[in-house]
Amino acid sequence: MPLESDTPVSYHSLFNHLLSPRSLVIVGASRDAEKLGHALLKNALSGGFTGPVHVVNPNGGEILGRPVTTRVADLPRGIDLALLALPAEATLDAARIVLSRGCQSLVVISDGFRDMDAEGAQREDALTKLCRDREVPLLGPNSLGVIHRHLGLNGSLSVAYPPPGGISLLTQSGAIGAAALDWMAARHLGIAKMLSPGNEAGVSMAECMTYLAHDSETSVIACHLERLTDGATFLRAATEASRGKPVVLLLGGSSEWRASQADGSEPGEESLPDAPSIFAAACDRTGVIQAHDFQGWLDILMALNHLPLPRSGRVAVLSNGLGPGLLTADLLAGHGLTSVSLDPALAAPLKGQIPRGANLRGPLDLSGMALPRHYQATLKAIEADEKIGATVSIITPQPLTRPVEIVRALLTDGPTRKPLVTVFMGGTHARAGMEEMDSLHAPCYPTPERAVLALAALDQYARWRGRGPRILGQFPVNRTRVRRLIQRHHLLGQARLPEMTAKEILQAYGIVIPEGESATTIDEALESAERIGYPVTLHLLSPELHLASDMETRHVDLPDPRALRDGFDLLTLRFARRVPEGRLEGVFVEKNLAHGRHAALGMVRDRQFGPILHVGGENTPPDEMICQLAPVTSEEAIAMLRAGCRQQKIHAICAEMNDSELQGVAEVLQRISLLVTDFPEIERVEINPLIIRRAGLPPVATECEMRLQSGRATP
Amino acid sequence: MPLESDTPVSYHSLFNHLLSPRSLVIVGASRDAEKLGHALLKNALSGGFTGPVHVVNPNGGEILGRPVTTRVADLPRGIDLALLALPAEATLDAARIVLSRGCQSLVVISDGFRDMDAEGAQREDALTKLCRDREVPLLGPNSLGVIHRHLGLNGSLSVAYPPPGGISLLTQSGAIGAAALDWMAARHLGIAKMLSPGNEAGVSMAECMTYLAHDSETSVIACHLERLTDGATFLRAATEASRGKPVVLLLGGSSEWRASQADGSEPGEESLPDAPSIFAAACDRTGVIQAHDFQGWLDILMALNHLPLPRSGRVAVLSNGLGPGLLTADLLAGHGLTSVSLDPALAAPLKGQIPRGANLRGPLDLSGMALPRHYQATLKAIEADEKIGATVSIITPQPLTRPVEIVRALLTDGPTRKPLVTVFMGGTHARAGMEEMDSLHAPCYPTPERAVLALAALDQYARWRGRGPRILGQFPVNRTRVRRLIQRHHLLGQARLPEMTAKEILQAYGIVIPEGESATTIDEALESAERIGYPVTLHLLSPELHLASDMETRHVDLPDPRALRDGFDLLTLRFARRVPEGRLEGVFVEKNLAHGRHAALGMVRDRQFGPILHVGGENTPPDEMICQLAPVTSEEAIAMLRAGCRQQKIHAICAEMNDSELQGVAEVLQRISLLVTDFPEIERVEINPLIIRRAGLPPVATECEMRLQSGRATP
Repeated sequence: MPLESDTPVSYHSLFNHLLSPRSLVIVGASRDAEKLGHALLKNALSGGFTGPVHVVNPNGGEILGRPVTTRVADLPRGIDLALLALPAEATLDAARIVLSRGCQSLVVISDGFRDMDAEGAQREDALTKLCRDREVPLLGPNSLGVIHRHLGLNGSLSVAYPPPGGISLLTQSGAIGAAALDWMAARHLGIAKMLSPGNEAGVSMAECMTYLAHDSETSVIACHLERLTDGATFLRAATEASRGKPVVLLLGGSSEWRASQADGSEPGEESLPDAPSIFAAACDRTGVIQAHDFQGWLDILMALNHLPLPRSGRVAVLSNGLGPGLLTADLLAGHGLTSVSLDPALAAPLKGQIPRGANLRGPLDLSGMALPRHYQATLKAIEADEKIGATVSIITPQPLTRPVEIVRALLTDGPTRKPLVTVFMGGTHARAGMEEMDSLHAPCYPTPERAVLALAALDQYARWRGRGPRILGQFPVNRTRVRRLIQRHHLLGQARLPEMTAKEILQAYGIVIPEGESATTIDEALESAERIGYPVTLHLLSPELHLASDMETRHVDLPDPRALRDGFDLLTLRFARRVPEGRLEGVFVEKNLAHGRHAALGMVRDRQFGPILHVGGENTPPDEMICQLAPVTSEEAIAMLRAGCRQQKIHAICAEMNDSELQGVAEVLQRISLLVTDFPEIERVEINPLIIRRAGLPPVATECEMRLQSGRATP
Repeated sequence: MPLESDTPVSYHSLFNHLLSPRSLVIVGASRDAEKLGHALLKNALSGGFTGPVHVVNPNGGEILGRPVTTRVADLPRGIDLALLALPAEATLDAARIVLSRGCQSLVVISDGFRDMDAEGAQREDALTKLCRDREVPLLGPNSLGVIHRHLGLNGSLSVAYPPPGGISLLTQSGAIGAAALDWMAARHLGIAKMLSPGNEAGVSMAECMTYLAHDSETSVIACHLERLTDGATFLRAATEASRGKPVVLLLGGSSEWRASQADGSEPGEESLPDAPSIFAAACDRTGVIQAHDFQGWLDILMALNHLPLPRSGRVAVLSNGLGPGLLTADLLAGHGLTSVSLDPALAAPLKGQIPRGANLRGPLDLSGMALPRHYQATLKAIEADEKIGATVSIITPQPLTRPVEIVRALLTDGPTRKPLVTVFMGGTHARAGMEEMDSLHAPCYPTPERAVLALAALDQYARWRGRGPRILGQFPVNRTRVRRLIQRHHLLGQARLPEMTAKEILQAYGIVIPEGESATTIDEALESAERIGYPVTLHLLSPELHLASDMETRHVDLPDPRALRDGFDLLTLRFARRVPEGRLEGVFVEKNLAHGRHAALGMVRDRQFGPILHVGGENTPPDEMICQLAPVTSEEAIAMLRAGCRQQKIHAICAEMNDSELQGVAEVLQRISLLVTDFPEIERVEINPLIIRRAGLPPVATECEMRLQSGRATP
């Protein structure tokens, strides 16, 4: 197992005692079945753990047939793992004594710490310090506990104990963890580890993730998350994990995130992508599969656990009725997958082997007369069809339908070469088929929508795994010029750059800005406008522009010389009145580009995830923007623009762009990506609108807002 | 029961013999359990029907203990209902004889008709004619059959037979119907009627819907649909039904609809809203609840069947863990509902009655220590809180959790006054709670997402029921002018109106078009442009414009006099060359409105649903447009524009409009609505862009395409 060198305690020693103890003690074990300490001991004794299990309870005697030690101080020295189920108030003392007896690791089940109130938070801090001082790993408090299934270690409050297998569960919520384990047990899904860091006073979600990434018993990681203290570290760990094995993540509390973010945002920031969108972008980059609800999370896990990855998104739908086939085809289309017919050369020989009423065009409909052998013959043909990547088989309860035998017929030659997800629609009559599927470890769902969702996640992960290396585009840019512009501006101590400076910076990075000329007199300005063509926008030029932040420093959309003259006078006279000592360098006469489609794009630097690029229409709400972590490759920039379709959102700007327009906007995204990677002091870029022109002309950034991190020096 | 007077056979007599027969016969009954005729007889005998059940099979003898008649011709005269399960080839003859023996109604189970091939379609037409001639109602062929549960009539192939109750099922797919009934039976959901019109050779989906609308045993209608032969009639029936009872509709095959529509569309029509979107708009208007997948369909049914409607969308979430509460709050927000806290005045007295670790801010978290009495006390407080409209209670499996007792505690005083949906998350441990809930006829789901979806449907239906009367806005318009313009154009026999004519029509209906002036010479045009301000668009004016349809008849975006001069010469010289005898009336010089946000809106006249208004951004794809059936009220027009948010789609145009802008665009929609209602010969209107101006100015229709129905006379 590779060790991490950049953490004070190595991962190996961190998790060795927690997950692979040779001995354990339950402190706070109870004979009262209404106490958690009872459930904890019962689990520990019945999980299959072969080492000594000590029990501490002040009343002594026996609990569940085990002799009880009355005082922690009387325990033998050097127990590997202590599980504490005591009232929060009593936990710290017990922990101190346990550790003084040489205990190697600690799991604290109890709540009443940071999860409750300020006093609890103090208790938690003391616990953290205690364990850190002794270099002892701590899981919890407020933890569901720990399971190492292959070792028979059940140090948890879970009411269910799934069989040994390859899924490991990492959860921030005990309730969600308990429900997930109960579901897995009912569906015969095997687990490797369960880790519940609770309040994360000790080991963190990120550390657990890194451990599971390298754990050879773990083949799929299920993760539930509802707080992110250090998103970047967690995401690094998840990225590392998903390179080797799928990580399926369920995010809770995003509506609270949104609300708290909206409360804390400054005016004008409502248009930034919100935390859940940024998180989704991060998942997208790192290959982490984000589930959108509890059932989807479990359903995807089941498919990943049982199936190979599909080699294409072309899916055969095999059903004993047209109705379910049509519903499934709709669902596939909604996920960007395609329902395909069987190759005619393979369909023809099937004629005698399937019911007379069967129809092999469109979704394969074997009719209500479908018998097990009909399913078997058709599945064989599907397996032989190289153009088909996966199969959804659907069984509805009809008079001649024999669910259990259909399952056996489908799996007669063992697992299929291509992913096969099966759907048993119905109630009582469907259940027998589901149970048979579960016992054969083949994924099975009660509705087409759940099957298709799981298959789509497989397809998404397969695509991510199969993607090429990330090569960032190189562009000739003028870094020196940007550095000088930023340095000059920094001296003024203003976060927001004047628009013309922002545009100069864009231009230095090869982004086209509207053509224009600077002029010092009205006559020069008129000549410029004549050359450029009306309408024009007039910008005031002065190094003291920041002193005039309360006045409009430009006039837009001036249609003719008279308006230009008025605009010129208004700008210069007002500036002179506002900043009498100000140095007026003249005006910039800028061509208006009225026509063309408008996009809005930019970058916001997230505290946790760094620079986030975003793109949308002119008025796209925050939770609808398409985000990506910078830097982006050309493919990723194009994928952002195409995401509109995939995510079933409207992105007018994307929907009708031709290839060259798409390339043009994608290049702007890459150039911004490069700019904000080169200059970390740029905190925000907002180009709105970016005008998309026809005929192969590059798009033009007609308005731009740029902000620097205040107080940050230029490198 | 009200009778329909506009159908040849009254609904009463249509369905009386089909659903309430005094005697029946199974033709094609079989002793072979592998034959459908066996299943059909078995169902008929075990359903509880008390009248005589005759059995026909050529081999005679006994089947399932019943004496068998060998020939149809030997049956007694005047049997009310004949159920035919014969090979398609033998069906017509049998039907003829059965009817000649005075049989009153016919259900044909067999497939092999229009569902198979052209020969089958011929057989079906003959069957239709036979029944129509004899005025005998026919259900099928390719039907799952018929159930009248309260009468004990099971004339179907359903493997399940749910208890008597209030849900009636109307399905186009036997497989979907069978699966739904099996699910309902497993969940103890009671049914009234099941009707499966199959290929609809006899009674139609619309006729069944009308029947169920007036059926006093039916309190909720579940409908599955995958073809629409006469959408308008069906929707009229569904509207009638949903006024009195909820109709929940599952639509299958929309991806096929889309594909076939895209294949058949003319160039330029890709931008029209597609059939599923129009259908969704129709549902929205009529109060029909459209489910988006199979499980959602059933889940919504369950909630509607068991619960009162909520009085507000403010929902209390009650859980034994924070994690599930947070997930649920996210889901509520996604459906436009709100997770609310308990009123502090009601929360305070709960302190002693709930666990110490409970938290009543945000989603109500009773902690893992939650016992039945804690749930009960909190639910009581929720019931007393007048600001709360509904409750989601969630139970995760934790060591002290007692699912069955929690159910009893929640329902201790019978059904709650407010809708209560319960979630048992998990597997084996959750099942006991689910089953207890089912037996008490309270809706229960295994995941928060399913519970919230069902609750959201209840809320949607409650809002629809509670909406005010529809009052169409009245506007002073110039009908005479429009009639004259259309009449004049009709003489030319062209479908597409010249743009300036289209704009005149809009103007006559009070929609603002760009200001402009007509001019006959270049000097006049230059003067006009000077007055109006550059840039301008130049339109050619001539009664013979249709003869020049292959040339551009306007020049847009002319920035200055030189460009205007060039444009004028190009238009007039080319027209003179193209139509030498043409009468050139001059040009129209139109002001360009470059700034402001752009919307696209219009009307397309659907063959089935009549005039459909649609609105979107400039490049909104068809399946993303917001549609409404014309005519629209002011509220409906505003709702269209607000739909962007509700449907989680981006409608840039809507997201940032202020109230006066919204009113302005909504008024344009209403005026178009009025126009196309007044003039049914207008087949299509497309305003793109409509420019939304600031400062309370009405929006301007800068470009407009309008088409007339070819060959249709003006009224």
